[in-house]
Formats: sequence, C-alpha cells, structure tokens
Amino acid sequence: MNIHERQYESLRKLVDDHLHSLVKQNSPKDVSDACRYVLSAGGKRVRAVLVLLSCKAVGGNVRDALDASAAIELMHNFTLVHDDIMDNAASRRGKPTVHTQWNTGTALLAGDVLLGLAYRKALNTNSGRLQRILNLFTNGLIGVCEGQALDLEFERRSDVTVRDYFEMIGKKTGKLIATSTELGAIIGQGTDRQVTALRQFGHYLGRAFQLQDDLLDVVAEEKAFGKTIGGDIVEGKKTFLLLQSLERARGRDRRTLMRVMNRKASAPLRNMPERKREIESVTAIYESTGTLDAARTLIRQNTTRAESMLQSLPASRAQGTLLWLSNMLLQRKH
Amino acid sequence: MNIHERQYESLRKLVDDHLHSLVKQNSPKDVSDACRYVLSAGGKRVRAVLVLLSCKAVGGNVRDALDASAAIELMHNFTLVHDDIMDNAASRRGKPTVHTQWNTGTALLAGDVLLGLAYRKALNTNSGRLQRILNLFTNGLIGVCEGQALDLEFERRSDVTVRDYFEMIGKKTGKLIATSTELGAIIGQGTDRQVTALRQFGHYLGRAFQLQDDLLDVVAEEKAFGKTIGGDIVEGKKTFLLLQSLERARGRDRRTLMRVMNRKASAPLRNMPERKREIESVTAIYESTGTLDAARTLIRQNTTRAESMLQSLPASRAQGTLLWLSNMLLQRKH
Repeated sequence: MNIHERQYESLRKLVDDHLHSLVKQNSPKDVSDACRYVLSAGGKRVRAVLVLLSCKAVGGNVRDALDASAAIELMHNFTLVHDDIMDNAASRRGKPTVHTQWNTGTALLAGDVLLGLAYRKALNTNSGRLQRILNLFTNGLIGVCEGQALDLEFERRSDVTVRDYFEMIGKKTGKLIATSTELGAIIGQGTDRQVTALRQFGHYLGRAFQLQDDLLDVVAEEKAFGKTIGGDIVEGKKTFLLLQSLERARGRDRRTLMRVMNRKASAPLRNMPERKREIESVTAIYESTGTLDAARTLIRQNTTRAESMLQSLPASRAQGTLLWLSNMLLQRKH
Repeated sequence: MNIHERQYESLRKLVDDHLHSLVKQNSPKDVSDACRYVLSAGGKRVRAVLVLLSCKAVGGNVRDALDASAAIELMHNFTLVHDDIMDNAASRRGKPTVHTQWNTGTALLAGDVLLGLAYRKALNTNSGRLQRILNLFTNGLIGVCEGQALDLEFERRSDVTVRDYFEMIGKKTGKLIATSTELGAIIGQGTDRQVTALRQFGHYLGRAFQLQDDLLDVVAEEKAFGKTIGGDIVEGKKTFLLLQSLERARGRDRRTLMRVMNRKASAPLRNMPERKREIESVTAIYESTGTLDAARTLIRQNTTRAESMLQSLPASRAQGTLLWLSNMLLQRKH
C-alpha cells in the first residue's frame, strides 16, 4: 500500500464505522433490516471519501465533514435502492437487491428512509454555512433524480443524441460526485475559487468515469470488470459508444446500430449464439467508426481537465490522494 | 361562508398558487408532468393551512411560513405517490394514480423529486431557526416512512394489537400533522410552551382524524363519504375497530374477526353477496362489543384534548379558525 492507498483506506474505514452505527432501532423491522443490509454491503465509498479529501485539500478538518460524507453515501445508497427497483435488477455488489430480498414496498420505503437519514446526517454538520450545504445537497438530490428520469426516458426513445447523453450522465453520475467534492470544499472553509475548482474536478471525474464504464462494457476482460461483456449492447442501452457510432455509421452498420437502439431493456437478447454475434458485430462497428478511440480521447481529456482543477489547490497529501484516486478509478483496463 | 371558512379558503388559495408555480421545467418530461399532475389534483391542503394558521396563532406573519407550508404539502404528496405504488391503488381524488397514468418508475421518481422540492422550499424559509425547522421536517419524514412501514408489516401479521395500531397511526397520520402545527409555531417565533401546545394539538387532531376515518368506513352514508362502505373489512385492514373488537369478542364472533385479520389486501373479498354478508356481520360485532361507542368516545376525547391545547394560545382569529377546522374535520357524519 502506498501513502495514498493508506489514506484512502483510513478514510473509507472512518465512513464505514460512521454508517454502521447509524441504523440501530428495530422497528419497523423489515425496513430497518433492509437499511442495515444496504449499508453493510460495503462498496468503495468513493463519494464519501471525496467529501473528506476535498475538505482536507482546502485545509479543513476531516472530522467536520464526516456527517456530510455519511450523508452523501446515504443519498447514493438511496438512489441505488430506487434505481434497482426501476431497472428490475436482481443483484448488486454480488448480493440480491433489496426488492428481491424483501419486496418492492420495503425497498421503496428503505430508500425513502435512507434519504431521511441522509438529511439527518447532513443537518448534523457543524458549520456556519449550513443553509448553503443543504441547498447544495438538495440540488444534488433533484439532479440525480432528473438524471435517472432521463435515463428511463431514453429507454423508450430512439432519437437520443450524444448531447442528450452528456446531459443525462452529467446529472445521473456527475452531479453527486461534483456535489461531494463541492460539499467537502465548503465545509473545509475553502475560498470561492477552491470550491469551484473542486466542483469542476468532480464534474470532469464523473464524466470520465461514466465514459469509461461505457467503454469497459465492450473492451474489458470479463473477469477484471466483474460484469458480462456486451451487456449494454444486448440490453439496448444508450451508451456514448452506441450514440456516437450511430452519428458516424451508414448503410448496413447503421441498421445494426438502430436495431440495438430499438431494443428494450425489458426484452434483452437471450439466445446465446445470437448475443455473441451481435456483440461482435456491434463492437466491430464501434472500432471501425473510430468510436472506441473517440471514447478513449474523451476519457483522457476529461481526466486531464479534472486533474488540472487540482492545480489551484495548495500542495498537500489530500491533493495528492485526490490525484491518485482519479488515476486509480480510471485505470481499469481498456 | 363564515369568517373561518373565508380565512381557510384564502390561505388554501395562497398555498395552491405557491405550489402551481413550482414545477416549471419540462425536462425530464414524464417526471415533471407527473409532479404537476399531482400538485394540480387539489385537495384540502389541510396540513399546509395548519402550518400557516399555527404561525399566525402565535403572532407570526403568514408570509414567513409560506415556503414551509408548501414544503409540508409537497412532502405529503410525496408520501401519497409512494404509498399508492405500495398499496397498488388505482385512483386518488377521482383521478388515476401516477403509477397507473404513467408507470411505477416514473411514480417512484416523481415522489423522490417532490421530496427534493419539499426540502428546497423548506430551505427557503427565512428564519433564524432554520436548523431546528429542518430537523423537525426530517424527523417528520422518517416518522411518516416508519408509519407506512408498520402499516405494510401489519398486512402480513395477525397479532397486531390496539397499542400497535396507535403507534402506527401516530406516525403515519399524526406525525405529519403534528409536524405541520409545530413548524408553523416555530416559524412564527412562538414560545416553547406555544410550540409544544401546537404540536400536541396536531398530534391529538391526527389521532382523532384517523379514528374517525376508521369509523366512517362502517357507519357513513356512502355518498357523503365518497368511499365504498366496508372497504376496510373486505380488505382485512387492521383498523382500530377490528383490533379493539377482537380484544372483546369471543367464540364465533372472534372467529369471524380472525378471518378478517387473516385476509390479505391483495386478495380482498370480491363476491358481492359474500361481501355484503361479511360487512353486515362484522359491523354487528363492532356494535355488540361496544367498539363503535369506544371509537366515538376516543374521537371525542382526542378532539377535546386537541382543542384544550389551543387554550394556551392568545385569543385570535387564527386560534378561532384552528378550532373551527378541528370541528369541521371531525364533523363528517358518523
């Protein structure tokens, strides 16, 4: 473990301990069990650690941002539980989703309660900037919901553009990450310039991260990625790759891509040989239209932009760990 | 219209206008359409008006409590949209429910967005007591969710007691009403004694209101009530009447009531002659065990307690309207 890994781990552990002590009461049983189940499932706690590192990077004290970091993680888990209901997802982090383990009603309420707990934590922040913090938090919440709503709408539309895509991921993925880094900077009493820089850092990081997630669907080695290769293709997901290649492809290639565009997530390709052929031919189109390279370029550009935002911060170990983290997140193989 | 009706109407209109101007943007389309649909469905806006009246009753300015009153109404509508998903309800206020008109995903998100908007409104409150206001609001949110969770658990349990029932309605119905009155009192800069009095007023009012709702299921004239008589019985709902009469009945009566206790809401009695017989025999047991009288007594006691709380407030028109309102709400025929 290098110095940054150690710092990340110690902050992640801080967040974990904070979260585990949160849901104590046992009434009502199912919903409180479900909340504990979600919070004990682990995960990297990236957003929470970003809050803490951003606070430190502007010279603040990590302890002051601990409640807010837990609040961000709770809000993130609220979105996961509700998204899983909407996407009809059977498992998450290798465990059955809440609505699968219990039922839709319990999952819906567990999500609502997690959001309530998120506000309770956020409100516990000891800061003269509480109203600003909560406004930011609330804008983050509404933005993430709007992002998910756009994502749902995309499923039923076959006219989604690359521009629409960036609006959607900017809200669904980017908003909460940018909220995390901005929140940390505000709590750490950062200057306006630092607050803006850290928000932008989160914005570009989120964008690069989502683009990379799209890319990894077709180019990662299955084992390393932990998902089935080509899942987005057989589900007809409107990824950057699909939308960008559609703007470039003609003739038969275009018809192949339109077939993917019109596929419903609720009716994915199930026939295995057919799946394999489809994934191969679509990936070949992504390659031949230069879309894979375009994605790689965009990931690099956004990562560079994110990292350049960190330059305006005073040199510190936290700044170094933020840099390390953005590299780590984006160095999944592709 | 008497002086109190006029005041109620003018405050209700103030809230309505405030709510209508709220959801303006059209992206994402379905979710924003759904939010507007919910907010334009009307309703009495009782909780919002209670915020405003409570603020006035302690000498505050209604304008200061307008954002908070909209916030409470938004939170209430959030619970309705999510509850309707869980209860699989087809209509509300004579219109299709959101998940029926759109789909479950859109309804789930519309609820989430309404809650986000609720916080945005609450945060807009100009008060030196903002942290206290938002903590109260958040406790209200978590309480209401816990109440709904208990209600869901009751559906699967056949060992629910009258005591469990009061815990459940205290959260599901009472909590938001008590939060409304307390919120108004805090924003109006009421003294601690006044704040407590108005919270208690809301608590007892909510309890009386829910008991009356249970009672009206069996004794109201169908037309006046607007619901089918005996709906709770054929759905096996754990009402005060069912739970209380179960504690009193013996022999064959008890077996009849246990049959109702074990009925699932998802599998209500559908055969019409059977329904009619069941409603008649269960209502007869409610009558013979003195349960209807017990309910009437409790409604009267709780109303009296609620009203006595208003005595500690200075005499004012708002105080008079609160008194009038509690009478009005509880004078539905039974």
